[in-house]
Amino acid sequence: MTAQRKIKFGAIIHGVGGNMGAWRHPDAIADASVNFDFYKQQAQKAEAGKFDLVFIADGLYINEKSLPHFLNRFEPITILSALAAVTSRIGLVGTLSTSYSEPFTVARQFASLDHISHGRAGWNVVTSPLEGSALNFSKTIEQHPNHPTRYRIASEYLQVTKGLWDSWEDDAFIRDKESGVFFDPNKLHRLDHQGEFFSVQGPLNIARSKQGQPVIFQAGSSEDGKNLAAREADAIFTGHPALADAQRFYQDVKGRAASLGRNPDDIVILPGISPIIGQTAEEAERKYEEIANLVTIEKALDYLGRYYDHHDFTQYPLDEPFPELGELGQNSFRSTTDRIKRQAKEQGLTLRQVAIREATPKTQFIGTPEQVADLVQEWFEGRGADGFIVGSSVPNGLNDFVDYVVPILQERGIYRTEYEADTLRGNLGLPFPVNRYAKETVAK
Amino acid sequence: MTAQRKIKFGAIIHGVGGNMGAWRHPDAIADASVNFDFYKQQAQKAEAGKFDLVFIADGLYINEKSLPHFLNRFEPITILSALAAVTSRIGLVGTLSTSYSEPFTVARQFASLDHISHGRAGWNVVTSPLEGSALNFSKTIEQHPNHPTRYRIASEYLQVTKGLWDSWEDDAFIRDKESGVFFDPNKLHRLDHQGEFFSVQGPLNIARSKQGQPVIFQAGSSEDGKNLAAREADAIFTGHPALADAQRFYQDVKGRAASLGRNPDDIVILPGISPIIGQTAEEAERKYEEIANLVTIEKALDYLGRYYDHHDFTQYPLDEPFPELGELGQNSFRSTTDRIKRQAKEQGLTLRQVAIREATPKTQFIGTPEQVADLVQEWFEGRGADGFIVGSSVPNGLNDFVDYVVPILQERGIYRTEYEADTLRGNLGLPFPVNRYAKETVAK
Repeated sequence: MTAQRKIKFGAIIHGVGGNMGAWRHPDAIADASVNFDFYKQQAQKAEAGKFDLVFIADGLYINEKSLPHFLNRFEPITILSALAAVTSRIGLVGTLSTSYSEPFTVARQFASLDHISHGRAGWNVVTSPLEGSALNFSKTIEQHPNHPTRYRIASEYLQVTKGLWDSWEDDAFIRDKESGVFFDPNKLHRLDHQGEFFSVQGPLNIARSKQGQPVIFQAGSSEDGKNLAAREADAIFTGHPALADAQRFYQDVKGRAASLGRNPDDIVILPGISPIIGQTAEEAERKYEEIANLVTIEKALDYLGRYYDHHDFTQYPLDEPFPELGELGQNSFRSTTDRIKRQAKEQGLTLRQVAIREATPKTQFIGTPEQVADLVQEWFEGRGADGFIVGSSVPNGLNDFVDYVVPILQERGIYRTEYEADTLRGNLGLPFPVNRYAKETVAK
Repeated sequence: MTAQRKIKFGAIIHGVGGNMGAWRHPDAIADASVNFDFYKQQAQKAEAGKFDLVFIADGLYINEKSLPHFLNRFEPITILSALAAVTSRIGLVGTLSTSYSEPFTVARQFASLDHISHGRAGWNVVTSPLEGSALNFSKTIEQHPNHPTRYRIASEYLQVTKGLWDSWEDDAFIRDKESGVFFDPNKLHRLDHQGEFFSVQGPLNIARSKQGQPVIFQAGSSEDGKNLAAREADAIFTGHPALADAQRFYQDVKGRAASLGRNPDDIVILPGISPIIGQTAEEAERKYEEIANLVTIEKALDYLGRYYDHHDFTQYPLDEPFPELGELGQNSFRSTTDRIKRQAKEQGLTLRQVAIREATPKTQFIGTPEQVADLVQEWFEGRGADGFIVGSSVPNGLNDFVDYVVPILQERGIYRTEYEADTLRGNLGLPFPVNRYAKETVAK
């Protein structure tokens, strides 16, 4: 089986990324986050590189200190649907929060995307880390729910959504013109969900797609997040500073899935990386420096504040140890703030050092195509990853990866040269989710 | 000015329409309502015919008696976004309910569609006529709100949405690489809305588009609906059995708009028609008969029940006067049930006659291309309409209209031969909505 195992790749598209100054680079497309031609070009490039999927992240709250590509950007459902029409094989995965939306609507929108794309949709389930989000949705939720509550909501939400997606059995629509039978009423099912947070009757007004149900991604790496992922997710978008961390996470989540009776191969783990590639190691370093130099310390402090409920860091001395912040940020980006605290302590970092690192984290996936390919292979074969979500922290980051790293991995036989399937689920090697009602029939 | 006035056209795409048996026609594409190639072909055909827009209707509740193309269909935001990528000039308008959604999300999704399409988005604001909808959204709304409440919600909802769309002034994004100024903070505005039904802080995380704001459509023709339209809408999708009714409605709404201080030309009135075209009048009649014959009386009674809270009409004698139904349907399809009651009384119709008429209404827009063009011109010049939303009640209905009727109207000089503008708003002849904050600046 190990011989069969192949790396999976996703491409995260988010306009000009990297850091809050990256848009200033001469080669950067400054309006990329609302430039459809850019998204189309990136998605088609990823498809040319036989990537499994494109990934669109999201957020529900901005203020004047937000990152440039967060201030003004496409909404995931719309941009993914548009990309569906200009691609044919690549998966289309987007973030949508369970804290500020309705399961009936979200189930419909992803199911509809799944039909438009002929079975290529995926949903990255998040619970919205920012307190500020609540202020834009206070009709339904007066206060931003706390971390454990958000995960209980998400869990029930997913039950409802998956239930709605099974409203129609796969062969429910007969459409026999002669007899006049459009569908088999025995294959239409009402959910009648009544739970703690939701009550949703159903049925959904759209059929199952070619891949059965959209693929479920999960991105939280807190305990609650890992448990939800182990129970419900098909794939995890994660992030780790080093292989050892990645391996620990990989074992942890696959173990949790196994202990819940799932096949650990049925949950695909994809750390995010933002490779910087040069024809020489020096050229790659130069590309990193170019981007890092575009950020000022003032902007770096602003950015850091984002993880701490927009805390003002200018009040602390820059070159003294990273300050003690108590509960700040604990209800938002918990795993990030825990990591920052741990690293600052372990490595004795000053505020300035933390701010610059966070603003322009220096990836270890930097160097020549061979060097980057070696690392990718090491993480993959060392079971730190089943694949990667590739971001662009420098202009043309994705293009360089597809043009120079992908061929090496293909040559080494650890990455596909052609799509194996025509659905996202198929390419990720995930099993087809049998309709719950069809299952019952089989059991009888 | 009258010399300049040109007819506007929209194409409503909804899979196989006409009646509940239309999918059985040999030329019908039975799965059209979830067939992206069909939607793409229809949108591109409408664009070839220089139509102003395509229109996607919606519903939030089905049961086993729903129309075939309601049971299993694309969700509007997703299909419109996909169509944006495969068209370049035609407007993209979809229905979305203000009773079961969040203004922040809906404002974002339409704004994002507006950017993807470069200024071609439109939103048909509805309040959800079906009691059943509430059962799919009971997290937020325990009971389906009554008719006047739904319209009060819609009105406040539109205030919020339009406010969010003005979060950024048109020239807020500077993106000057040299100076490092990405945006002008003086041109970013927080809404801070606190109302009866919603409290939404903002700002929205997407800029205004080329057309300023998406075009607002409204489709209700009750008193509440007409008042909302006169105050807030750019366009109205309506429907009338005869020119006299259309003229009455046209005068009524334009009058209401004028009395609110609006230019009546700034609200475009578009009745829906489903023309049936033959090379001869006989061929057109034959096409109608073919479709009408595909419906049984049982299905026609079912269909009628849809307007009356899914009332069971089989309990009444078929060939006696249409029954007295009291308050049934008054909170759902009020204008339709009022019309049915009035017509049944005035014309002394039996239940069977009403059911068959409603299942397969015989359009007066039937005949040769010249006959249909004459009627279109008569309604347009008689100020019953500024244009029409064209539906397909028979296979190839839209194609026939574009191929045979459009050239006649172009020849007569009352319909465009080329798009005048590159936004939906521009083609509809609507003014650019000046940002409310820019307005303030101008006023100072």
